[in-house]
Amino acid sequence: MSANTFGTYFQLSSFGESHGLAIGGVINGCPAGLEIDTEFIQNELDRRKPGQSKITTQRKESDTVKVLSGIFENKTLGTPIGFMIQNEDQKSKDYEEIKDSFRPSHADFTWEEKFGFRDYRGGGRSSARETASRVVAGALAKILLKKTNNVSVQAFVSSVGDIELKENYKNLNLELTETNIVRCPDENTAEKMISLIEETRKNGDTVGGTITCVIKNVPVGWGEPVFDKLQANLAKAMLSINAVKGFEYGSGFEGTKLRGSEHNDKMTSTDSGITFKSNHAGGILGGISNGDDIYFKLAFKPVATIMQTQESVNNKGESIAIKGKGRHDPCVLPRAVVIVEAMAAMVLADAFLASKLSRI
Amino acid sequence: MSANTFGTYFQLSSFGESHGLAIGGVINGCPAGLEIDTEFIQNELDRRKPGQSKITTQRKESDTVKVLSGIFENKTLGTPIGFMIQNEDQKSKDYEEIKDSFRPSHADFTWEEKFGFRDYRGGGRSSARETASRVVAGALAKILLKKTNNVSVQAFVSSVGDIELKENYKNLNLELTETNIVRCPDENTAEKMISLIEETRKNGDTVGGTITCVIKNVPVGWGEPVFDKLQANLAKAMLSINAVKGFEYGSGFEGTKLRGSEHNDKMTSTDSGITFKSNHAGGILGGISNGDDIYFKLAFKPVATIMQTQESVNNKGESIAIKGKGRHDPCVLPRAVVIVEAMAAMVLADAFLASKLSRI
Amino acid sequence: MSANTFGTYFQLSSFGESHGLAIGGVINGCPAGLEIDTEFIQNELDRRKPGQSKITTQRKESDTVKVLSGIFENKTLGTPIGFMIQNEDQKSKDYEEIKDSFRPSHADFTWEEKFGFRDYRGGGRSSARETASRVVAGALAKILLKKTNNVSVQAFVSSVGDIELKENYKNLNLELTETNIVRCPDENTAEKMISLIEETRKNGDTVGGTITCVIKNVPVGWGEPVFDKLQANLAKAMLSINAVKGFEYGSGFEGTKLRGSEHNDKMTSTDSGITFKSNHAGGILGGISNGDDIYFKLAFKPVATIMQTQESVNNKGESIAIKGKGRHDPCVLPRAVVIVEAMAAMVLADAFLASKLSRI
Amino acid sequence: MSANTFGTYFQLSSFGESHGLAIGGVINGCPAGLEIDTEFIQNELDRRKPGQSKITTQRKESDTVKVLSGIFENKTLGTPIGFMIQNEDQKSKDYEEIKDSFRPSHADFTWEEKFGFRDYRGGGRSSARETASRVVAGALAKILLKKTNNVSVQAFVSSVGDIELKENYKNLNLELTETNIVRCPDENTAEKMISLIEETRKNGDTVGGTITCVIKNVPVGWGEPVFDKLQANLAKAMLSINAVKGFEYGSGFEGTKLRGSEHNDKMTSTDSGITFKSNHAGGILGGISNGDDIYFKLAFKPVATIMQTQESVNNKGESIAIKGKGRHDPCVLPRAVVIVEAMAAMVLADAFLASKLSRI
Repeated sequence: MSANTFGTYFQLSSFGESHGLAIGGVINGCPAGLEIDTEFIQNELDRRKPGQSKITTQRKESDTVKVLSGIFENKTLGTPIGFMIQNEDQKSKDYEEIKDSFRPSHADFTWEEKFGFRDYRGGGRSSARETASRVVAGALAKILLKKTNNVSVQAFVSSVGDIELKENYKNLNLELTETNIVRCPDENTAEKMISLIEETRKNGDTVGGTITCVIKNVPVGWGEPVFDKLQANLAKAMLSINAVKGFEYGSGFEGTKLRGSEHNDKMTSTDSGITFKSNHAGGILGGISNGDDIYFKLAFKPVATIMQTQESVNNKGESIAIKGKGRHDPCVLPRAVVIVEAMAAMVLADAFLASKLSRI
Repeated sequence: MSANTFGTYFQLSSFGESHGLAIGGVINGCPAGLEIDTEFIQNELDRRKPGQSKITTQRKESDTVKVLSGIFENKTLGTPIGFMIQNEDQKSKDYEEIKDSFRPSHADFTWEEKFGFRDYRGGGRSSARETASRVVAGALAKILLKKTNNVSVQAFVSSVGDIELKENYKNLNLELTETNIVRCPDENTAEKMISLIEETRKNGDTVGGTITCVIKNVPVGWGEPVFDKLQANLAKAMLSINAVKGFEYGSGFEGTKLRGSEHNDKMTSTDSGITFKSNHAGGILGGISNGDDIYFKLAFKPVATIMQTQESVNNKGESIAIKGKGRHDPCVLPRAVVIVEAMAAMVLADAFLASKLSRI
Repeated sequence: MSANTFGTYFQLSSFGESHGLAIGGVINGCPAGLEIDTEFIQNELDRRKPGQSKITTQRKESDTVKVLSGIFENKTLGTPIGFMIQNEDQKSKDYEEIKDSFRPSHADFTWEEKFGFRDYRGGGRSSARETASRVVAGALAKILLKKTNNVSVQAFVSSVGDIELKENYKNLNLELTETNIVRCPDENTAEKMISLIEETRKNGDTVGGTITCVIKNVPVGWGEPVFDKLQANLAKAMLSINAVKGFEYGSGFEGTKLRGSEHNDKMTSTDSGITFKSNHAGGILGGISNGDDIYFKLAFKPVATIMQTQESVNNKGESIAIKGKGRHDPCVLPRAVVIVEAMAAMVLADAFLASKLSRI
Repeated sequence: MSANTFGTYFQLSSFGESHGLAIGGVINGCPAGLEIDTEFIQNELDRRKPGQSKITTQRKESDTVKVLSGIFENKTLGTPIGFMIQNEDQKSKDYEEIKDSFRPSHADFTWEEKFGFRDYRGGGRSSARETASRVVAGALAKILLKKTNNVSVQAFVSSVGDIELKENYKNLNLELTETNIVRCPDENTAEKMISLIEETRKNGDTVGGTITCVIKNVPVGWGEPVFDKLQANLAKAMLSINAVKGFEYGSGFEGTKLRGSEHNDKMTSTDSGITFKSNHAGGILGGISNGDDIYFKLAFKPVATIMQTQESVNNKGESIAIKGKGRHDPCVLPRAVVIVEAMAAMVLADAFLASKLSRI
């Protein structure tokens, strides 16, 4: 029941502040006997790490994961998988001067009111640094899903500001996502996005956008109504990511304008079983996977830290002027792609394990 | 950890199939000593019940709640509050002919694949009838929130199909919501929505829309990062409601197009403490309430049951033609308003209780 | 996480006060497709019900269970199984005069201090009447265990006061347990126990004793270290039963006097696999079932309500004299046998479901 | 819901194998603002560590705890407290020869059957080495209890084999517990126990015993009926400790022989409020603390590893002869005292936090 634990069957307990000794976590519920490719886990972390390209923060952290338990002779033991990532770049002094300040649209104010005090260094636990632990657990979930069910989870940046990739994901080659630094599978659009991010950064500003995620090969029957419907758990997972402001799956907000006769997905029998002629459902019916692709879209707000002077208040309620300094992301989306995949993979791994208990 | 239980501290365990003996639930975690107005609970149920107006299903069910335990001399005992609502309209025979059929965009197919068989009568547990139990628990949560913190939870229909109420909720009188049968606080727009629903029904079709929800007077400090952020729990709650396809809070999807310098909410000191000059945050920072209004918007797909012949398949994989009959909602939104409020109230009640444990 | 919910995978949420409208519960996690013999469930309840013999309370309650959901065409649906048992014997007036009194060794005092007030009628929720809900869930668990694994759960009264059945359970015919009213499988000892109980009752007094429980045919591999070890969950289950003061399994307290060389159970290979030459382990090694019989023993204190005048205090702190009246059990053990079995069956059903998730 | 997580409000997620890189854990639910004496935590660990006296194993491990997160400027942040203890003495080679063997009365057999394979080095996760993580969490729980409620938790060795300390704990000076290496507060008895342990070790054998635990100053009102009764959670906590075979509280097994008129604890009013004239209850009524001392007793079986040749089988089912080698405890009780206290403190800290939610 801890608010720092995610999942019911496949479970991550995450710990760590941005500038403490380490962040890390414990993964519970991963079944025994799963072969683990530790290089894959590190690769996933590298997709998230700072300093990876000119459009991310220039902060340097190697973000090397160290597995402490639960894996023996390259296989999961069925015991808790403890892991940690040391914090290298602990320049606490940089933060001394903002320790009493509330940065606009950051969690400084709410955190201090809730807990009475806070680790002000780099946002403490409210920092998105915490998501590195999620990426580790997500990598494990991906391995579990791939080896047992050949399920794939792929996200990509579908808009930055008003630069939008309008093409349906079915017409895109998602393998191209990793070929550019913004992680958009359409090269043309990717270039425009990169230009927009660079321009925004030059203005000392930041920009938001959307990420789309597609999950393939999920068998019929995953998802646990009535409260742990697949879309409900995905929504929670996604809204728990820093900066996410919205979630829609299948036909989403646009679908509200359709009539039932247009929106219903017709079913038909084919050689490979029952299939659907359209997928407004987004691969989920009544909270349970229907065998079709699951897809959803997320809204990310622009990063709160900007390189401009802003008015704000401190914890005595006095007016102050504040300006971001140091190295920050002008746009969080390229690095967030792997976080979205990680959370989605954890939700699916959870649903997979739950599905083993449906019938006697 | 049951998928039929919602909440961590304020908890509903819901049970019941659409055409079984009864639906109901058990509410755990409601503190002792809360005075209960049972009439209010029934009123809330009446806002949801079928047959309440010309634009809802004409099915008649009195939906009378019977509290079995947990309340003594009008006060909560601190023990589980068991309750039930008898199912009156159990015309099982109506459903005999569809017992082997999979209705398009219904959960018949996924449910049968998952569990091996299903209660086909009225959708069994996949029916939205189950949400009546949520309304009971939500009513209790509202009482708890109102009496302890004066928190109010108000939802309204903000669009039906392409008829949209564009006005910011701040300029609306939300008290007017209950003055019309579509539950839109703007009379003009309400009339257009009602016309659209009636027209759609005449065509044997259905239509979707959006609901907006506003929560006022939440103190600073509710919400449990990193996974039980207030917006994450709200998103899960909302996506667990039948037919919901999307959730956005604060600036939502539109906010992705803003720059950080535009999106950040400036803080300022006033006589009543620290406040914000804008509310793109939607009342939540870092997953914790910031004292401002919390607001969010939901997408509802059009109802799947239409009065038109559709092609589909049965559980032998054979092609069939299927046509809705009986009494169904052409638009689910007017009745869903109280369900949205109920789920929101449960999330907030949960966050309120959790907040008692933040500090020594 | 509710304190009124038991189990992780096979889960009972129990509700109800002794003299409210009804008691009951919701069972979650029972897999779909299990055939249910409802007569068996009622039979189990009858083994617990008051008024069944001359050595139990003479209170009369039919204790008829009504299943409200989750079972369709005699099979579990995989959905929550809601049930209720109406309270018939609600003589609230009998309790008016003790509403401000704290009965010695009852929960009146602690309950009122904790919650601020209480349902004083018949002990409210602190009454052992609540265990009827456990018997219903336990009956279901027994069916699940029997049909899937042929596991049996049998308890019996092994002592009343200082009348003790010293024979090892292996030398007893446990089928004889139900042939006498005290539920001791040795006729001679049973008669002595019955005499002792009758004599005690005549003195207006009560007496304690022990119950032994034996679980057979559990396969190797059930139990979830390190905290949900099989014996840990059994201990919790048992100590949650009213009046239980102690739990020991296998060699128990006596085993502490042995040397390791005496206590270790030697393993050997037979045609039917690896077996043990002794069973000090009580069928559990490292928290996991080892294939041998699981057995444990429980201490029950004498019933607190006696037909003698006792000094006590009321809720104003004033001295009072109090005397039990009405119809009470002179010895709780005969009726507790089925409660012990029910709790044990729930723990085992839980472990069975958990075991499905150990390996990929 | 993980079996490697203990507690509902005050929660430890433990990880680690005996001979992996590290063991450790994450503590969730500790409120913000608690001042932490890290030296105290290390001292508690030192009470458990191997090699501390001539009657424990001579294995040397410094068992130094490293806190990774959740504490800032010596105060808890209200965030997860991650910690680790490096494994120093990883002589894996020592274990090569038993990797296919099942040691008698160890968990090797059940573990391998459950998970398909196991980390055979030093028992892997089934080793009592894991309890070091519990001691860390228990130390924190003790600090929380002491600073907020002045609650103390003290355990001592009350018997070794048939050497028993029969004196009621009320007549003992529990401060003397730490003055001798066997941790028995009566010097005379302590000497006899030490002799017995030394003699047993010389014979290559091991011996069991009992530990008694006393908890003082618990206010009225802690404990969560009906399933999380204080004694139920204590019983689970204790039976989850390696080698524990029994639990009794208050009058325990002896109390079953009393009549109700003897067993009932009379209540009376004094200047300091309502008190009890006796304490058969063991400080708990109806699952809730009654303000009196809480006390309970545990049975520990003799250590399974003996320095004698025993017959056993390997994982091919072949007969083998096996003999313990290396450095093992002849008696686990002196080192277990602090583990018992740790688990008890966690249960009490949990109950304390829960009690904050009883009333509005």
